[in-house]
Amino acid sequence: MFRTLVAASLLAAASALPAQVHQSPLVDPKVAALRDAAHDGDHYAWDITEGLTTEVGPRLAGTEAEARARDWSVKKLTEMGFANVRIEPFDLPVWVRGHESAEILAPFPQPMVVAALGNSASSGPDGVTGEIVAFDSMDALRAAPDELVRGKIVFVDHAMPANQDGSGYGQFGAARRQGPTLASQKGALAIVVRSIGTDNHRTPHTGTMSFDNGAKPIPAGALSNPDADQLLRILKRGQPVRMKLVLESRQLGTGKSGNVIAEVPGRDPNLPPILVSGHLDSWDQGTGAIDDASGVAIAAAAAKRIMDAGRPLRTIRIVWFGAEEVGLFGGLAYRATHGKEPHYAMMESDFGADRIYKVDSKLGPDRKSEAEAIAKALAPLGIVTGSFTEAEGSDIGPMLKDGHFGVGLSQDGTRYFDLHHTADDTLDKIDPAQLRQNVAAWTTVLAILSGGIEEPKAGKRR
Amino acid sequence: MFRTLVAASLLAAASALPAQVHQSPLVDPKVAALRDAAHDGDHYAWDITEGLTTEVGPRLAGTEAEARARDWSVKKLTEMGFANVRIEPFDLPVWVRGHESAEILAPFPQPMVVAALGNSASSGPDGVTGEIVAFDSMDALRAAPDELVRGKIVFVDHAMPANQDGSGYGQFGAARRQGPTLASQKGALAIVVRSIGTDNHRTPHTGTMSFDNGAKPIPAGALSNPDADQLLRILKRGQPVRMKLVLESRQLGTGKSGNVIAEVPGRDPNLPPILVSGHLDSWDQGTGAIDDASGVAIAAAAAKRIMDAGRPLRTIRIVWFGAEEVGLFGGLAYRATHGKEPHYAMMESDFGADRIYKVDSKLGPDRKSEAEAIAKALAPLGIVTGSFTEAEGSDIGPMLKDGHFGVGLSQDGTRYFDLHHTADDTLDKIDPAQLRQNVAAWTTVLAILSGGIEEPKAGKRR
Repeated sequence: MFRTLVAASLLAAASALPAQVHQSPLVDPKVAALRDAAHDGDHYAWDITEGLTTEVGPRLAGTEAEARARDWSVKKLTEMGFANVRIEPFDLPVWVRGHESAEILAPFPQPMVVAALGNSASSGPDGVTGEIVAFDSMDALRAAPDELVRGKIVFVDHAMPANQDGSGYGQFGAARRQGPTLASQKGALAIVVRSIGTDNHRTPHTGTMSFDNGAKPIPAGALSNPDADQLLRILKRGQPVRMKLVLESRQLGTGKSGNVIAEVPGRDPNLPPILVSGHLDSWDQGTGAIDDASGVAIAAAAAKRIMDAGRPLRTIRIVWFGAEEVGLFGGLAYRATHGKEPHYAMMESDFGADRIYKVDSKLGPDRKSEAEAIAKALAPLGIVTGSFTEAEGSDIGPMLKDGHFGVGLSQDGTRYFDLHHTADDTLDKIDPAQLRQNVAAWTTVLAILSGGIEEPKAGKRR
Repeated sequence: MFRTLVAASLLAAASALPAQVHQSPLVDPKVAALRDAAHDGDHYAWDITEGLTTEVGPRLAGTEAEARARDWSVKKLTEMGFANVRIEPFDLPVWVRGHESAEILAPFPQPMVVAALGNSASSGPDGVTGEIVAFDSMDALRAAPDELVRGKIVFVDHAMPANQDGSGYGQFGAARRQGPTLASQKGALAIVVRSIGTDNHRTPHTGTMSFDNGAKPIPAGALSNPDADQLLRILKRGQPVRMKLVLESRQLGTGKSGNVIAEVPGRDPNLPPILVSGHLDSWDQGTGAIDDASGVAIAAAAAKRIMDAGRPLRTIRIVWFGAEEVGLFGGLAYRATHGKEPHYAMMESDFGADRIYKVDSKLGPDRKSEAEAIAKALAPLGIVTGSFTEAEGSDIGPMLKDGHFGVGLSQDGTRYFDLHHTADDTLDKIDPAQLRQNVAAWTTVLAILSGGIEEPKAGKRR
């Protein structure tokens, strides 16, 4: 509540100014007008976020639900008036969740709430039963002799903090990403990790992992934070703790996914396009509102607002990537097909829908004035200027590393990991005012990158 | 967070005063000293709350888990030094939850999160499938012709607000309490209600209900609030909505429960006792931290603090009621056995562990000065003076209605119905500082009601 109120007052301060207030002469008035109109009135992003989460719901990579999401997207993007709407398909290995439960058998019998991690082995319907061996960190697990771990169920704890920039996910997420391989290599029966999350609800955080270096797949799950707290309290009583873990997940073999692409054609089709993106797939427990319906919605809403204003010089290409959650398959497929083609810039929204607080860009030394114009135009939205030499993204990350240009609009992630990869990632977590601030920032950046918008002539308005 | 900070500053203001600050002459300095020592240093309530939720966990009425909770309680109360520790057993009908799931089949296939209500009929493993017929209120369901409802799955919505005094539960809770009977009488296949709760998490709120007036039991569940929101959005799209509902709950017939009783013997055993209470059973999804481990803990901690200070004139009787959640069975059993015996006053804690904000009492016209002394002594804890003619309680409610005296310490319930009857009712939701404020208030009341505490002679300290 507190955070929402602060954010709301910041947003209110940034809303369209009355004519009596003189605006910065360093910002193109047309850009400022597009920015402020989006900030005060965008509904496209909400419509897409609500529609996708309601009419499709969860859309796990490679499943029939993700295929329905692609069909929904093609219909929606076509209805919105975009050109060249198409699907670029690709294959991927498909994993699905099954029945899952955890239970303390001794010394204090009670159920716990668990979620299988992506690529967990199946325990079979009878589950696995073993003594818990607990570690406060990946370093402690790494240091443990195999004899301590063999035949047991490993529990890895950690202390991930909620940070505005989302730092902590990289470091503390190692328990999820590398813990299962390490536990398997030491002979563990199974592993449960404390959820990689910052909330205190009984909604465990799933996420993908892989068994590397030839490690044999074992059942691997995440306990909710209250359950991890409880397991620690039980362990502190000093008696051996036995758990039964049932994770009936399955590998389905090779399946289909695809990237959904649509464009606002530029006046000069020979110029490199601007790529704006998010990912269409979600985890299966929630409806993927913050991860990443709002991301695809923000990217498309900003492109639509430019299209409504007129015809940009450069083509804007919307890409809604498939199968991001399970290993960036969509981004890698796009890179394989289009990665050698020039792009004017790449952008991705994949960190929720809370307000943007920082802009980074990597447009090269020749385009410093363009990068500065972007920063100046965003400042009235309460967005600080970050780096001029770096930008990030999940699907577009490998292409940015390859040398592509990019702009990064960083969202406030303070509450992102309360919801990320849980059943609680649902539409009610989206704040419409903050979502509009995102669209305003994206519209601002596109208005500048697009190279000038030719307004429709009278009588030819769309 | 905001609420916690406000509460924390109120609590800090109420902590033990330095000697330079003159205290009200209307408060007995011995009472004030006991109050302030509890406020600053109580650990008994936390120990009990943590122990019961950790070492027993969920403890559904009439189950083996509730029996373990009674054994745990007898051991704990004995170790704490209380006298006459005993169980008064009684019988009750036992219902248990089984596998449960809900799924929208059309027009937008997706899973939903549901919890069976206490006394729900079983759907069998194959579930029931039907079209949703939705009502915005119990009044709308009541007004509906049977033809509209027959053979369908009823959905009852409502708009319960979060209020400090918990009002809203009575009114909006009707959907849970009377909805199933009404739906059954109109020929519904099954019913789902929006959770009687004020949060937006995927943790549905269970709770008891009964099929009255000969209504045939049907499957009855609660959708989490985000799922109820989603169902409404799906309905608003205008197409028929089909749901599959699986609730494999069971009636186990007659089982055992019991009240756990312990005493601080008074100097005059012929005087009527003061009854302090909470309930030992909990719902099965969470560990019953706010409902009601903290309640039994607060009552016992206050009694223990009086016992530590010396010997009260009147006996303090601790009662940890069994089987409250499923129909006040423990309170009614105590009433049947002891309801005709005089009691000096009755008190119950069953509304979480957030700070007490109001004191009500019903001690009769002859004891007005005692009631006023209680109010004066509580004011420094930030507790306002309420009624002198009314007091409430769940288990003790029928006895208060019979004419017994009582004192009611009202807790701040603003966030109570975020957690009530959900998997999220776990220890991490208890704020230790607010829990101590509760113990301080209860200790204050007991110090006054007990009729004077005889301090132990030197060399005879416990």
